Amino acid sequence: MLETKLTRKLKVQYPLIQAPMAGGPTTPELVAAVSNAGGMGSLGAGYLSPDQIRIAIKEIRRLTDRPFGVNLFVFEEPNPLNDDIEGMNDYLNKYRAELGIASSPPIPQPAESFEEQVNVLLEEDIPVFSFTFGIPSTGVIQAFKRQGTIVIGTATTVEEGIRLEEAGVDAVVAQGSEAGGHRGTFATNAADALIGTMALVPQMVDALSIPIIASGGIMDGRGLAASLVLGASAVQMGTAFLTSAESGAHAAHKQKIVTSTEDATEVTFAYSGKAARGIRTEFMDDMRFYEGTIPDYPIQNVLTRDIRQAATRASNPEFMSLWAGQGLRLAKEQQAAAEIVKQTVEQARIVIGDLGRGV
Amino acid sequence: MLETKLTRKLKVQYPLIQAPMAGGPTTPELVAAVSNAGGMGSLGAGYLSPDQIRIAIKEIRRLTDRPFGVNLFVFEEPNPLNDDIEGMNDYLNKYRAELGIASSPPIPQPAESFEEQVNVLLEEDIPVFSFTFGIPSTGVIQAFKRQGTIVIGTATTVEEGIRLEEAGVDAVVAQGSEAGGHRGTFATNAADALIGTMALVPQMVDALSIPIIASGGIMDGRGLAASLVLGASAVQMGTAFLTSAESGAHAAHKQKIVTSTEDATEVTFAYSGKAARGIRTEFMDDMRFYEGTIPDYPIQNVLTRDIRQAATRASNPEFMSLWAGQGLRLAKEQQAAAEIVKQTVEQARIVIGDLGRGV
Repeated sequence: MLETKLTRKLKVQYPLIQAPMAGGPTTPELVAAVSNAGGMGSLGAGYLSPDQIRIAIKEIRRLTDRPFGVNLFVFEEPNPLNDDIEGMNDYLNKYRAELGIASSPPIPQPAESFEEQVNVLLEEDIPVFSFTFGIPSTGVIQAFKRQGTIVIGTATTVEEGIRLEEAGVDAVVAQGSEAGGHRGTFATNAADALIGTMALVPQMVDALSIPIIASGGIMDGRGLAASLVLGASAVQMGTAFLTSAESGAHAAHKQKIVTSTEDATEVTFAYSGKAARGIRTEFMDDMRFYEGTIPDYPIQNVLTRDIRQAATRASNPEFMSLWAGQGLRLAKEQQAAAEIVKQTVEQARIVIGDLGRGV
Repeated sequence: MLETKLTRKLKVQYPLIQAPMAGGPTTPELVAAVSNAGGMGSLGAGYLSPDQIRIAIKEIRRLTDRPFGVNLFVFEEPNPLNDDIEGMNDYLNKYRAELGIASSPPIPQPAESFEEQVNVLLEEDIPVFSFTFGIPSTGVIQAFKRQGTIVIGTATTVEEGIRLEEAGVDAVVAQGSEAGGHRGTFATNAADALIGTMALVPQMVDALSIPIIASGGIMDGRGLAASLVLGASAVQMGTAFLTSAESGAHAAHKQKIVTSTEDATEVTFAYSGKAARGIRTEFMDDMRFYEGTIPDYPIQNVLTRDIRQAATRASNPEFMSLWAGQGLRLAKEQQAAAEIVKQTVEQARIVIGDLGRGV
């Protein structure tokens, strides 16, 4: 039932992957609930330390014996010469004053060591490793494959998909322009890589021989069925699970999602220095004047961290990063993740069945 | 077979509308070929004079007795106070020099009279009237409906769709961000109205009670089937027919489409003062420096007309408007329009049938 070449490979019941959402939403409870319901949960571990990753994996395993994925950010060395870090930090002090936090600039820390994160995943022998923002070395990809871990990359253009297949991944997420959160773009500039899911998926399917996972704007069984019809072997859904009961997203973030319309988001560099889609905030609007001077990821991400954390404590959504896709009117409030999986699969069966009878 | 509530209303065989593409591509031969093949052809008449429209309609009727549509641009009064028309014209002289045409600024002419265009369509008693860029007066909509003409509006957001339904249209084209050519946006700014087809269609279907026509990135039977699964009652395909044998698009435009990839387009105001998606050109790249100073549609459209015409005569695509959607890798060269209809419908049946058996 709804079996595809990818569900067989992943050993899951349904072609439905809960998107890895770094920064809090993908609690072990959410990941396990999706996997237990027959989909595949994913831990967004990009911002987690090696120890935090190990603890989360152990907790997921305590809650489910089904397959799950862990997602990392492929580390890129930023070019600090391009960036006016001090200027941006001075500018950000305005928000720090507004939020009542210290204005002493935080010193940019190196990103979590990708190598150490990878080592934990290899030691824990996870079922599925997914990644975004680039392509890890052949050594890393092969190390996972040797121990039987399925490897999934993220592409926002066909060319990126081709490079991922050449690098040896088992499947590729085709991230359409509708998708919430960070863009996986790595081989072109962010503006050129905003291809709608309806256009991106069939072109990726034609160009690659490995399974394609459709993502971006998919919120229910209609989106799942449409993606399979386009040739995808599964879907990845983020926003739909971000407002689930098990999601660790802040209540103000969930509230904004369930009360916003499809035109409420835009792609911004303001929070992290990397393109990401989120619900428009005062901070995004302000930062538009600084376009072109925002330091690269991960520097800007480090610079805005204290602001985002203070906004979170104050439940002030205007300075939080409210990542979300364009399917906002379809978001449901605090539904159990298992229920989302069940309803999505049931609706997909119904719409496919109805149409099949008419053909 | 593939019958929907809209195919019954339109009295056509297949839920497949050839998009009205103003400015040349939609020859009477193309419109009639699509209608004769069981889809519905549409004449893009936005730039045509009342006489030209009448001649084209008579020619379409000579070639087919099946239903067809005629599309107009709802006229908006531009605000010339906002615009530095002389400054733009001076700037454009650079291109006129390059193309060897007179540098005397053309005097902006009023747009074709919407009222006179409408009167021809009423006199000719056309089967289907579609429009974009806004909502005509209730008087106009009701005049068409009284004589049995089906009226179709264009929306890029759910809110625009709701307003169109309230205005009394029979169906709404949901124009996703993937779509080539001019954006139909009229109730918000163009940047906020770039919603991917996968996200836009189900949200529009849920909010409206009239049939929805999916458009944007749909190039083949997979796109048709996916749109029906999302709840659409038909699709509208433009780029797929722009390269057909019957299309009047310039050979250089067709050539660019069949040789470009999905990431080759962007949304620009450069040619007309209104947002439109086309393949990137030297002219678009240059004009990016003038963002914010480009006069509103239709003024900029008039100002650049001689440049576009000279580029067309010189077969120089870099100064032509190469409107195209994001499904470029799926475009086929000089296929007969009837063959495109047939293959699209057949492929839709196959993918739906295949999936239906697996459910």
